Amino acid sequence: MKNIIRENNRRHNELREISFDLNFINNAEGSCLVKFGNTHVVCTATVDDRVPMFLRGKGSGWVTAEYGMLPRSTNTRMQREVSKGGLGGRTQEIQRLIGRSLRSVIDLKLLRERQIIIDCDVINADGGTRTAAITGGYIALYLACKKLLEDRIISKMPITSMISAVSCGIVDGVHLLDLDYFEDSSAEVDANFILTNDNKIIEIQATAEQKSYTQEDFLRMLELARVGTNQLFELQKQALGI
Amino acid sequence: MKNIIRENNRRHNELREISFDLNFINNAEGSCLVKFGNTHVVCTATVDDRVPMFLRGKGSGWVTAEYGMLPRSTNTRMQREVSKGGLGGRTQEIQRLIGRSLRSVIDLKLLRERQIIIDCDVINADGGTRTAAITGGYIALYLACKKLLEDRIISKMPITSMISAVSCGIVDGVHLLDLDYFEDSSAEVDANFILTNDNKIIEIQATAEQKSYTQEDFLRMLELARVGTNQLFELQKQALGI
Amino acid sequence: MKNIIRENNRRHNELREISFDLNFINNAEGSCLVKFGNTHVVCTATVDDRVPMFLRGKGSGWVTAEYGMLPRSTNTRMQREVSKGGLGGRTQEIQRLIGRSLRSVIDLKLLRERQIIIDCDVINADGGTRTAAITGGYIALYLACKKLLEDRIISKMPITSMISAVSCGIVDGVHLLDLDYFEDSSAEVDANFILTNDNKIIEIQATAEQKSYTQEDFLRMLELARVGTNQLFELQKQALGI
Amino acid sequence: MKNIIRENNRRHNELREISFDLNFINNAEGSCLVKFGNTHVVCTATVDDRVPMFLRGKGSGWVTAEYGMLPRSTNTRMQREVSKGGLGGRTQEIQRLIGRSLRSVIDLKLLRERQIIIDCDVINADGGTRTAAITGGYIALYLACKKLLEDRIISKMPITSMISAVSCGIVDGVHLLDLDYFEDSSAEVDANFILTNDNKIIEIQATAEQKSYTQEDFLRMLELARVGTNQLFELQKQALGI
Amino acid sequence: MKNIIRENNRRHNELREISFDLNFINNAEGSCLVKFGNTHVVCTATVDDRVPMFLRGKGSGWVTAEYGMLPRSTNTRMQREVSKGGLGGRTQEIQRLIGRSLRSVIDLKLLRERQIIIDCDVINADGGTRTAAITGGYIALYLACKKLLEDRIISKMPITSMISAVSCGIVDGVHLLDLDYFEDSSAEVDANFILTNDNKIIEIQATAEQKSYTQEDFLRMLELARVGTNQLFELQKQALGI
Amino acid sequence: MKNIIRENNRRHNELREISFDLNFINNAEGSCLVKFGNTHVVCTATVDDRVPMFLRGKGSGWVTAEYGMLPRSTNTRMQREVSKGGLGGRTQEIQRLIGRSLRSVIDLKLLRERQIIIDCDVINADGGTRTAAITGGYIALYLACKKLLEDRIISKMPITSMISAVSCGIVDGVHLLDLDYFEDSSAEVDANFILTNDNKIIEIQATAEQKSYTQEDFLRMLELARVGTNQLFELQKQALGI
Repeated sequence: MKNIIRENNRRHNELREISFDLNFINNAEGSCLVKFGNTHVVCTATVDDRVPMFLRGKGSGWVTAEYGMLPRSTNTRMQREVSKGGLGGRTQEIQRLIGRSLRSVIDLKLLRERQIIIDCDVINADGGTRTAAITGGYIALYLACKKLLEDRIISKMPITSMISAVSCGIVDGVHLLDLDYFEDSSAEVDANFILTNDNKIIEIQATAEQKSYTQEDFLRMLELARVGTNQLFELQKQALGI
Repeated sequence: MKNIIRENNRRHNELREISFDLNFINNAEGSCLVKFGNTHVVCTATVDDRVPMFLRGKGSGWVTAEYGMLPRSTNTRMQREVSKGGLGGRTQEIQRLIGRSLRSVIDLKLLRERQIIIDCDVINADGGTRTAAITGGYIALYLACKKLLEDRIISKMPITSMISAVSCGIVDGVHLLDLDYFEDSSAEVDANFILTNDNKIIEIQATAEQKSYTQEDFLRMLELARVGTNQLFELQKQALGI
Repeated sequence: MKNIIRENNRRHNELREISFDLNFINNAEGSCLVKFGNTHVVCTATVDDRVPMFLRGKGSGWVTAEYGMLPRSTNTRMQREVSKGGLGGRTQEIQRLIGRSLRSVIDLKLLRERQIIIDCDVINADGGTRTAAITGGYIALYLACKKLLEDRIISKMPITSMISAVSCGIVDGVHLLDLDYFEDSSAEVDANFILTNDNKIIEIQATAEQKSYTQEDFLRMLELARVGTNQLFELQKQALGI
Repeated sequence: MKNIIRENNRRHNELREISFDLNFINNAEGSCLVKFGNTHVVCTATVDDRVPMFLRGKGSGWVTAEYGMLPRSTNTRMQREVSKGGLGGRTQEIQRLIGRSLRSVIDLKLLRERQIIIDCDVINADGGTRTAAITGGYIALYLACKKLLEDRIISKMPITSMISAVSCGIVDGVHLLDLDYFEDSSAEVDANFILTNDNKIIEIQATAEQKSYTQEDFLRMLELARVGTNQLFELQKQALGI
Repeated sequence: MKNIIRENNRRHNELREISFDLNFINNAEGSCLVKFGNTHVVCTATVDDRVPMFLRGKGSGWVTAEYGMLPRSTNTRMQREVSKGGLGGRTQEIQRLIGRSLRSVIDLKLLRERQIIIDCDVINADGGTRTAAITGGYIALYLACKKLLEDRIISKMPITSMISAVSCGIVDGVHLLDLDYFEDSSAEVDANFILTNDNKIIEIQATAEQKSYTQEDFLRMLELARVGTNQLFELQKQALGI
Repeated sequence: MKNIIRENNRRHNELREISFDLNFINNAEGSCLVKFGNTHVVCTATVDDRVPMFLRGKGSGWVTAEYGMLPRSTNTRMQREVSKGGLGGRTQEIQRLIGRSLRSVIDLKLLRERQIIIDCDVINADGGTRTAAITGGYIALYLACKKLLEDRIISKMPITSMISAVSCGIVDGVHLLDLDYFEDSSAEVDANFILTNDNKIIEIQATAEQKSYTQEDFLRMLELARVGTNQLFELQKQALGI
């Protein structure tokens, strides 16, 4: 395998330093400051007694997500989306992905007519904000569900399995796990994997940025993603004390 | 394998009836009405002498796409996006996907400072509008490039390989190719594959809609997609006379 | 009279080639692809059980219209209105005109509390899109009403007379019927006539584009419009089989 | 002829009380508070050294108009258009009409690359706001042109003829001149005529509100409009001292 | 004290010419054209039977305000806010200030579930538009309340004290009352005082525009404001006949 | 003096616990996480080589501010402003205040044609977010200026004096320093003071929320503000090491 030197001498199959700072925002029903290296995302879970219009009277709950970036989370200041007059395509794609992923590991019926909103706000961005958001969003969601259970508002834990997410890519011909911004910018292929702790797949997005890739390339990235998410599941368990 | 009865007795690995009606819109530099069964999409290519701001003076071209649906392309009338005050997340996701996919099979330098805009407007929707749009958008793009070449505005065909797209899914445990709206609505897993005629991958999106899936599920869907896109490449070639 | 050479040797009082392709869009309650020469408009009628706020509880129905153009319906690509942040003045004028005209030939009480929305989307534009839209919109409206009648949702045909529309203008001093885009662009006076088959007037709009006109000019245009709409009524009847 | 009793015993062919209060707004290059009975409109003309994009470098000028209503100009308070998120269709139709009409009586070349913006803001509305706005807008435009001439910025008066506007309608079968709001609300036919003082027509809009009308109806309304605008031309001349 | 020459030889502690033209807009429940010199503001009060969402069912009323400027109220034409796509910060600040101030002198309970909307539209601007708007808005509010009382819709006058507002500033080291636009533009300190006729304070806003100021400066401006508002109270009383 | 029990036994003239965490956001030219008790605000300073349009070519710089709140910074989740379609009035008022205040203590000429943007994003809100934002924004601004000086981009420190801000209010008749959210919600009078370390005033805003106040009330609040800002200046100096 060709060699590539990564920041902090990371190996090709090594995650960045990961941390979860639980209950970072006191007001929220669940919250977490998740760090994947220099990518820092504040994730909060809000329990809301109203469900979206299409679910009213159906006896089922909902999980949705919103995603934002502070203007100076990036190296060059970004304009606020409110100033641009609406949510950009990238923001909408990411928040739809976070919501869809988290909904796939929760039994919405157990929530009854109740919505949990996961807000993921990027404080520092250095690549992989969406995978950090999903991984930390899971923590916030778990905490909020636990609170609902402890407050006897729901009678059974609705979360059905653990979920975490990580990016992989091909940079200069080398398959890498958990790309930072610099690596991501020069990647030929960029992929995001959202996996469960029972070895299942929730979502795969794998995009040729500069040139097409082969099935073999794909399978090597999937393997790296398994390595990464297995470590993330351990860290999530430690953080949650489960 | 479990059995499932599809509309028109389609087999699980069979495409719907496909057609390409070239030069459907006279004004455009390239155009095509593509049909995947009852999904009908008007694709046009517009050559524009201006490139986006970030490319000015860089000597390179660009390909971008816009996607829309007529209000009554769907069974229940949809509100126009202009009336809703902005592009929805789904629309933005799809048009970003179309643009990204088509850019991956064109040598942008050969376009010089020139942009090609692919408009994909759905006239009738019956599932798979994004895959039809990419497959038909390729035709429109090809025609526009051919015109640029014939008009001696560019000196070499910039398209580097053929591209087509098809959806796959798992419905009631059965892996299906090219889902219609009814199948898509009840699919457990929904995937879109954008592939090249030299057996490479441009983009994969595979989403668990109701429950997670396995690596084996994934590989069976990828195999179905190969079957489908290989047929699409033949039909594209016939339509273009190449 | 001065002579002017028109495309396809059309005489000054001759319509372009007219066609109505009924049920072009399967999903709609009524639909029609109307062609006035190279001006092609998709018209659909949607029956909606809700009426606008100001009619709720009044026991009367409503007919309204929306108008749009595909980006490449014109020779130079138009920006989508959603991207411009709202409906332009021209679009609003036209859709208000279509709705107002069609409402004038329907007994809204017979619809009960029910709305019919006429969508007119221009696929190809070559002058006279609003007159084609009204003429084709009538067909779509008629088909939707007929369906309501056949489905015994209403008990009596609510349409009270036939309606069609045509433009006239003065180009280089010559009074012309049914202007194409080229003629319209150079017209000194531009007028639209919306007439009924019992020789009545629904709406007249007659505008001096470059110089003022006389009452005699006006009357000659009105006469040409009578000639044109009488032919349109015959073609509408043939298409509808009435 | 059937009889109808109008406010203040007005005859069917009589204008409301008309007045022009010149230079009502000091800051503007030309201004006028025009009153048609209880319809009061502030018209201002602003001379702007920039022309719209499509005219830059063409050596020609432009006249454009904007129209607004104070929230409480109407009997029931209207929401401000900024609060509704955009210009309504009626507003856009009216301001396009005002601009188009005034452009037809000015030699734009004589303005050179210079724009005159006519703002018409309704203070009190009682029917006929668009006709009052055009009639008063002419005064503001004239004053601004006169000022340009006196300041030797232009060398020749660019206005080519006088213009005024008035509404007519059919109420309860009676043809009336200059409808107030109450009459307008119950009119079967509503028409606006924009005429010149040399007996020419600039624009006609004649709409069947409840039922269609005949050619004879139309001609009677046009005759009433001639009576009304001839009086308006006299009053404009007196006001301008010409 | 240093000397400064003001327009019309006004003394440093002298108001501009003030007038109140009551019932300027017939349709409104209360209205007033207020003039502070060349600053002219149309103030109307609208009684609305609906209260904002947060007050429904609480048995209490509300007073709110909206503020606007005609495009040519200023020396250089301003773009309409609807064309800019939303209310600017300055507009929002001013209308919040007007609403808050007027709410502080009314017993909202006495209005029951009823809202009074004060619209303040600037016709001519020459500095001090917000203070004129509050002073005139009080008149409109008073008239509307009086009408509610006379119509026996409320049983007791809800207004608890008189309110008026005036600006002060420091120009070239001199403390001035009621600044016009020219003075305001060159002021080092700019302050607005909203006071009651029982010698109390409703709101103070005092801003260093170019350099900071001392407590003594502040107190001298407050003293000037007392002089000014005491005169305004006399003029308000005369206008209202109380 | 009447007694009131404050959270953590704070005295009426005591600040909450204050801290400044410098360089909290690595990417920014200056940044600080400021805490006033449970009110936490991330302040960043961005140096931008472009000045606003009105300053181009004038040789002077600019300082501006933007303010935002994370959705769950408050006890009940707030909707994002981008979802509401624009900046609310409160947000605009606050960001205008922050920008204006910071501009008053900087010599803009020394910045040359360069803008510093201060972003203040509230992470946790418990009253006094605008005063914390100004106090922390000063730190971010100072750090950015220091960096410009160290990088020899400017030649002289442009900051002319220190600035800090604090709220005061009257709750249940007692004059209090630095109100938390609970106190603020029940305050009769609410005031914000922005003061300099040389005993001068930059801005005062003092609002009667429920009832009017006297001059004596005002002066007691100003005195409390002096006590508070003097402590803030000491803490700012410690944090900056000056």
